[in-house]
Amino acid sequence: MEKWVYSFIEGNREMKALLGGKGANLAEMKSIGLPVPSGFTITTKACNEYLAKGSELWEGLKSEIFRHLHDLEERAGKKFGDELNPLLVSVRSGSAISMPGMMDTILNLGLNDQSVIGLAKETGNDWFAYDSYRRFIQMYADVVLKIDKYKFDIIFDRVKNENGVDEDTKLSTENLMQIVKEYKNLVLKENRSPFPEEPKDQLLIAVEAVFNSWMNPRAEIYRKINNIPDDMGTAVNIQEMVFGNMGNTSGTGVAFTRNPSTGEKKLYGEYLLNAQGEDVVAGTRTPKDIIELKDKMPRVFEEFVNVCDQLEEHYKDMQDIEFTIEKEKLFILQTRTGKRTAASAVKIAVDLVDEGKITEQEAVMKVEPDQIEQLLHPTFDPEMLEQAEQITQGLPASSGAASGQVYFTSEGATEAKERGEDVILVRTETSPEDIEGMVACKGILTARGGMTSHAAVVARGMGKCCIAGASDIRVNEKEGYFIAGEQRFKKGDFISLDGNKGNVYKGKIQTEKPELSGDFSKFMSWVDQFRVLKVRTNADTPKDTKQAIDFGAEGIGLCRTEHMFFEEGRISVVRNMILSREVEDRIRALDKLLPMQRSDFKEIFEAMGSRPVTIRLLDPPLHEFLPEEKEDIKKLAKEMDISVAHLHSVIEDLGEVNPMLGHRGCRLAVTYPEIYKMQVRAIMEAVVELKNEQNLEVIPEIMVPLVGELKELQYVKQLIIATINEVLMESQTTAKYLIGTMIEVPRAAVTADKIAEEAEFFSFGTNDLTQMAFGFSRDDAGRFIKEYQEKKILEKDPFQQIDRPGVGKLMEIAVDLGKKTREDLKLGICGEHGGEASSVEFCHLLKLDYVSCSPYRVPVARLAAAQAALRFPKHK
Amino acid sequence: MEKWVYSFIEGNREMKALLGGKGANLAEMKSIGLPVPSGFTITTKACNEYLAKGSELWEGLKSEIFRHLHDLEERAGKKFGDELNPLLVSVRSGSAISMPGMMDTILNLGLNDQSVIGLAKETGNDWFAYDSYRRFIQMYADVVLKIDKYKFDIIFDRVKNENGVDEDTKLSTENLMQIVKEYKNLVLKENRSPFPEEPKDQLLIAVEAVFNSWMNPRAEIYRKINNIPDDMGTAVNIQEMVFGNMGNTSGTGVAFTRNPSTGEKKLYGEYLLNAQGEDVVAGTRTPKDIIELKDKMPRVFEEFVNVCDQLEEHYKDMQDIEFTIEKEKLFILQTRTGKRTAASAVKIAVDLVDEGKITEQEAVMKVEPDQIEQLLHPTFDPEMLEQAEQITQGLPASSGAASGQVYFTSEGATEAKERGEDVILVRTETSPEDIEGMVACKGILTARGGMTSHAAVVARGMGKCCIAGASDIRVNEKEGYFIAGEQRFKKGDFISLDGNKGNVYKGKIQTEKPELSGDFSKFMSWVDQFRVLKVRTNADTPKDTKQAIDFGAEGIGLCRTEHMFFEEGRISVVRNMILSREVEDRIRALDKLLPMQRSDFKEIFEAMGSRPVTIRLLDPPLHEFLPEEKEDIKKLAKEMDISVAHLHSVIEDLGEVNPMLGHRGCRLAVTYPEIYKMQVRAIMEAVVELKNEQNLEVIPEIMVPLVGELKELQYVKQLIIATINEVLMESQTTAKYLIGTMIEVPRAAVTADKIAEEAEFFSFGTNDLTQMAFGFSRDDAGRFIKEYQEKKILEKDPFQQIDRPGVGKLMEIAVDLGKKTREDLKLGICGEHGGEASSVEFCHLLKLDYVSCSPYRVPVARLAAAQAALRFPKHK
Repeated sequence: MEKWVYSFIEGNREMKALLGGKGANLAEMKSIGLPVPSGFTITTKACNEYLAKGSELWEGLKSEIFRHLHDLEERAGKKFGDELNPLLVSVRSGSAISMPGMMDTILNLGLNDQSVIGLAKETGNDWFAYDSYRRFIQMYADVVLKIDKYKFDIIFDRVKNENGVDEDTKLSTENLMQIVKEYKNLVLKENRSPFPEEPKDQLLIAVEAVFNSWMNPRAEIYRKINNIPDDMGTAVNIQEMVFGNMGNTSGTGVAFTRNPSTGEKKLYGEYLLNAQGEDVVAGTRTPKDIIELKDKMPRVFEEFVNVCDQLEEHYKDMQDIEFTIEKEKLFILQTRTGKRTAASAVKIAVDLVDEGKITEQEAVMKVEPDQIEQLLHPTFDPEMLEQAEQITQGLPASSGAASGQVYFTSEGATEAKERGEDVILVRTETSPEDIEGMVACKGILTARGGMTSHAAVVARGMGKCCIAGASDIRVNEKEGYFIAGEQRFKKGDFISLDGNKGNVYKGKIQTEKPELSGDFSKFMSWVDQFRVLKVRTNADTPKDTKQAIDFGAEGIGLCRTEHMFFEEGRISVVRNMILSREVEDRIRALDKLLPMQRSDFKEIFEAMGSRPVTIRLLDPPLHEFLPEEKEDIKKLAKEMDISVAHLHSVIEDLGEVNPMLGHRGCRLAVTYPEIYKMQVRAIMEAVVELKNEQNLEVIPEIMVPLVGELKELQYVKQLIIATINEVLMESQTTAKYLIGTMIEVPRAAVTADKIAEEAEFFSFGTNDLTQMAFGFSRDDAGRFIKEYQEKKILEKDPFQQIDRPGVGKLMEIAVDLGKKTREDLKLGICGEHGGEASSVEFCHLLKLDYVSCSPYRVPVARLAAAQAALRFPKHK
Repeated sequence: MEKWVYSFIEGNREMKALLGGKGANLAEMKSIGLPVPSGFTITTKACNEYLAKGSELWEGLKSEIFRHLHDLEERAGKKFGDELNPLLVSVRSGSAISMPGMMDTILNLGLNDQSVIGLAKETGNDWFAYDSYRRFIQMYADVVLKIDKYKFDIIFDRVKNENGVDEDTKLSTENLMQIVKEYKNLVLKENRSPFPEEPKDQLLIAVEAVFNSWMNPRAEIYRKINNIPDDMGTAVNIQEMVFGNMGNTSGTGVAFTRNPSTGEKKLYGEYLLNAQGEDVVAGTRTPKDIIELKDKMPRVFEEFVNVCDQLEEHYKDMQDIEFTIEKEKLFILQTRTGKRTAASAVKIAVDLVDEGKITEQEAVMKVEPDQIEQLLHPTFDPEMLEQAEQITQGLPASSGAASGQVYFTSEGATEAKERGEDVILVRTETSPEDIEGMVACKGILTARGGMTSHAAVVARGMGKCCIAGASDIRVNEKEGYFIAGEQRFKKGDFISLDGNKGNVYKGKIQTEKPELSGDFSKFMSWVDQFRVLKVRTNADTPKDTKQAIDFGAEGIGLCRTEHMFFEEGRISVVRNMILSREVEDRIRALDKLLPMQRSDFKEIFEAMGSRPVTIRLLDPPLHEFLPEEKEDIKKLAKEMDISVAHLHSVIEDLGEVNPMLGHRGCRLAVTYPEIYKMQVRAIMEAVVELKNEQNLEVIPEIMVPLVGELKELQYVKQLIIATINEVLMESQTTAKYLIGTMIEVPRAAVTADKIAEEAEFFSFGTNDLTQMAFGFSRDDAGRFIKEYQEKKILEKDPFQQIDRPGVGKLMEIAVDLGKKTREDLKLGICGEHGGEASSVEFCHLLKLDYVSCSPYRVPVARLAAAQAALRFPKHK
């Protein structure tokens, strides 16, 4: 028979899934001899069963609860609801993972008009008894009966006023008795039935309320955001009360064993005398620094410090502890691993190793990979942030904080930058044409597009703050303003972007530059010891390349050659090339681009030294390089000396219904072989020059995008090899190189055995693979993906985290088939997922050789890779 | 050691792959005792070896050829190149599958200035010897030396003129000698070297020419179109000459054993006296009906009839035979299974069964599935077609023939139809807005789009002729004209479309209506006996439904509910629905659509009787229902009483970068559940009404499109079931139904085990699955898919024929996973591939339950299914 209830002495910290975090830790603390009041835990399974039964408590569970309650009575020598010596309990929820939105604590449960008299008599403290009673009624009414708290506050404050009392503790017992009476009337009025007097009813109703709170919207949203399954359920902890409100020798408080913001090894917390739990956080009384307790109650303080040490020693991590002092006796009510900032996380991990408390491996597991990026970007001045007015929210597409004046066009942004302004580029969505403006700005805000929209990808690549898909704003680029809510922001107005949260604020907020501590380097050096996956970067410019090396990149996994095409002075040559009617004209334009690309590659190779560099040949459809706006088309026509009508018709001809599935990638090479020829020539000439000039041997990895069929790769490969041979012949030299392909088309995944016949490496292009596997256009999916998440159809945005059952399955098929054909096939990933922790773990499990991500995600990927290796050591 | 050459007496008809069709059949005929001149065959493997060796004949092969030549000399008692009694041979190519563009026949090889004298002496016929010689030089120069034939014709005609001769046979021996002399001079001049005198050189050069012709462009294109592998190679047949040009007791001819156009059982062919092979087809002399030979040479004719009977008996099929008569002796030079029209194919198959020559199974294998559709559509008057001027070509997107006046807009087409005109709708591409024009017209011509473009799909559904992607034409819809080559066709001009070939002709060509014979029904009844796959139809209207039943459809596999939305009087309600800002307004509009859809479903169910009907809920993105043109937007805004600017911004908001991967399919149901609710209600109310009114029990199969994830289907399914229960509750009745999904998103295929938990059936949407598996937008791929085929990267357009290694693999994965979860999972296909023979075969191999295709492809699918079942009986 299923056991639904566990006494604290039956559990331990390994039983989190069953007892919840709170229950498991209470049992654990009990077992190591800490002063924890007795109690028991109703399991998370009972919660699921309750929900499955249509939210009804069943007899079996009820009798088990009462059996444990009886044990508690025996142990305490008190009786639940007794008129003489009543047992009071607290009821608290506790799931395996702590979660906001769940039902709050109920204290002092078991009080009614009879037992309050018993409590008063037994303690000899009437004031305390009625203070506890009024607290209980209010709390119970609030969290169980859903009667608004402020209605009780009105009564409480009125009584205080009427009696000229300014502090709660100065109310008389009579005042409290009056308050209790009025509270009960309020409940009767609001609830249309009296306050439940029977303690057992109070208890069962409270248990139901905890269970029901598992399904409340806030908790549900939290679970969705944090990827917590709904069937985890919550436990309920029922514990004998201890009282911080028995006068000035009693009190309550919370403390962290170290500073959660800086990591400093120093007790950090607050307490209040003659108070119960919620008073510390309620703000009606100002709590005191925990350090002051040393003077007030030296013996209790010393005991508390010892408990803190013992808990840190036991849990091997910084703890967040709740305690109560009842007549100078210390009780510990909760401990949990404390939340912390990224900086603190790193410092604590390093310190704990230095203190000999944990190993380097354990230290590596203590920092969240996604957190670490915070350390690399500017942050807002916290005080100014507090004052700021939030005007809208979008997707946190690229981390960091940026403040500046808004501009709506690439030119506008560039000119403002030249005037020395800090610029925020605001657009409905960005396109490759906006690249100069994106370079010039501090941050980017778009109204459309998701986490992998053009703006998001480019911004992350640049390590620049970006908020994408802020769908509530309306941007009018032409007239130079955007509207958020009722407010209109015009060219030059200040706004501030928090790229970590996706929040947009009005006005200017000071930003602070990040400083990387010595602890950070130490920590990352451990990280690198343990990981198996190599970490490369996606970088298209020498600047990005250098940045990535600073962040620990071991090579370039994706150098997108098209970004080079957008630079000033080049785009018009590119357009000339595209608009050529004859192959000869196209080749003439390509000849002009050749030296430019060659010198780009040379600089990147130089920066990378002996590290591997994967270069992707041209990928986007050609129409992406042509202007869309009427004005720009006119300008270009003039520049090119052709008629506007003709240019228009060419642009229209190149237009596509679904450009994502159109004439792009290696399909371009099949129809315009001369483009890839030029690119390959540029790569190899750069290789040859570096060999001759600097004796630097570069082994370029030439990557063909969008391959879906072996013969396609064969066609392009022979083209590449012929060009390479031409260059080597001309320069009378030799050079090594690899030719491989992206796996981004589902067909490539399922025919990977064939494709591996020609490809020396695979690089998973998980952005496109996700688009095609799901049939989601990342430019358009924003419109329904949110709703999909809200309706729990998708747990996570698959563009952020690799969808293991679908996209992951295709990857697995490709790896298996590819290795069957070519045992030493080199495997990597260069989609945006390469810098996301869960996806990196998946790549580790797939035994890829490397992940590649934007420079600022490189440390994230390094840490995620190390954690994956430690978690799954067999996959080395 | 490899044997490269086979004597005719060493081969048989099973050796087609090695000896080519011609060689294998010559050997076969020899083996059954027919009068076939002796000879030998150089194998197809030798051809491949030759090409692999860089187009060089090697010693081993040459000596084997000469050894067989020597045997031939022995057997004939003649000597190759002899001055007294020379052996002459013919050299003919012959691959396993007959193919245009390959090298033609060379006759009389072995003649030179010496041996011609020997031939004259031996036969006592100088005229014959020099007639043979001049023929040989011209043929050899043409096909081997690539000297234009007409240059010889000029000489020949001049000599005829100079001598006042009107018929070739009336030239004197001296004339012929002069011609020979002039021919040889011409060769010397054109070829810069003399005509090869040495017979062995003549032979080897000719063999090389045959091998090389395997790689000539026409042959390559033919192979590509017909899916023939390049490494099949061609054989070369070398055969002792027999002579039809030895006077009026000699002759040559070709004949079919039955009429290849009608199938009538009557010898059909032509002959010429005193002639050699090419004279019959050259057109310089008019050949005589084969029947006349009966009077001219009764004995020979009787022998020939016997040979024909013997060959039909032996090959069990209508034969296409070449023969030569040398001095009243009959020789058979070739036999092959004769090409035939669809009508003839069916009649011959049925007759052969009636004659007891073949079984019904064999009969079913004798008709090409793709051919059969011809029987269902109108055809052009063949004589008028011959005269017609072709102006362009596109893809043969939907079969049939249509002639009419061109219109460029839906309105224009509709009005012209009302005036009684036959209309051809010409557009750059069609969109759902054009539906009325498509209904009104006889045929559709588009400049863009492939075999599965909107125009193609809709036209096939309607059984209407369509040519899509005629990329050479430029259509100007606004000004009402299109340009093909140098010609401009304006509104009201006549053109004619041949949907079977994709040819577009200028002017009007008479069309003839099809008549289905009794043989057709008999044949199709056999077909239905043998097939395992069920055949359903894709039909959206009662009219299509009835048509499909006439063609043998066993149910509806795909009823697209959106097509119903475009009908007049509905589209404005639909637009109202889309443009509603509040759910209430949307529901009000949907309430208006409900009775319309209900009555559609009722009519369709009624037409289908007890046959199953699969209804797909709304699939296309909503913006497809909104107008695109400025004028139309203005009109709609007025109609809806909203501002043009507002309407414009709504349309822009709904616009998508990649609509194919956008907000459509069941994604619509997640964001606008009320749309599917209305559709399900319409379906179920129709079911209930038919039950109550007619006692007809319909079991609708409700199909959810674009599912990619189990939870998505779960969400939509509960919505559907809730609505069904509502309807059933209201009407106090019960009804059966199935709920299933399309498998058209790659992720659905690889997670099909999960999806089958909720889906009672899968229907493969191979159009979209192909788009997503390849990453090809079918609207855009036209631009590069041709080049892909030309460069041999793709053998076949995957939108026409299921790509087995890629898309097929995904289908296989889905079938395996799906059946693992649900053994009795119902499986079908409703993509365009459901009516294509090879794809139907693949579906049979996958053990699907049914294929579904447009009404006019139903007979094609039935036949293809039967052939697949006969070919792969184990897959029952």
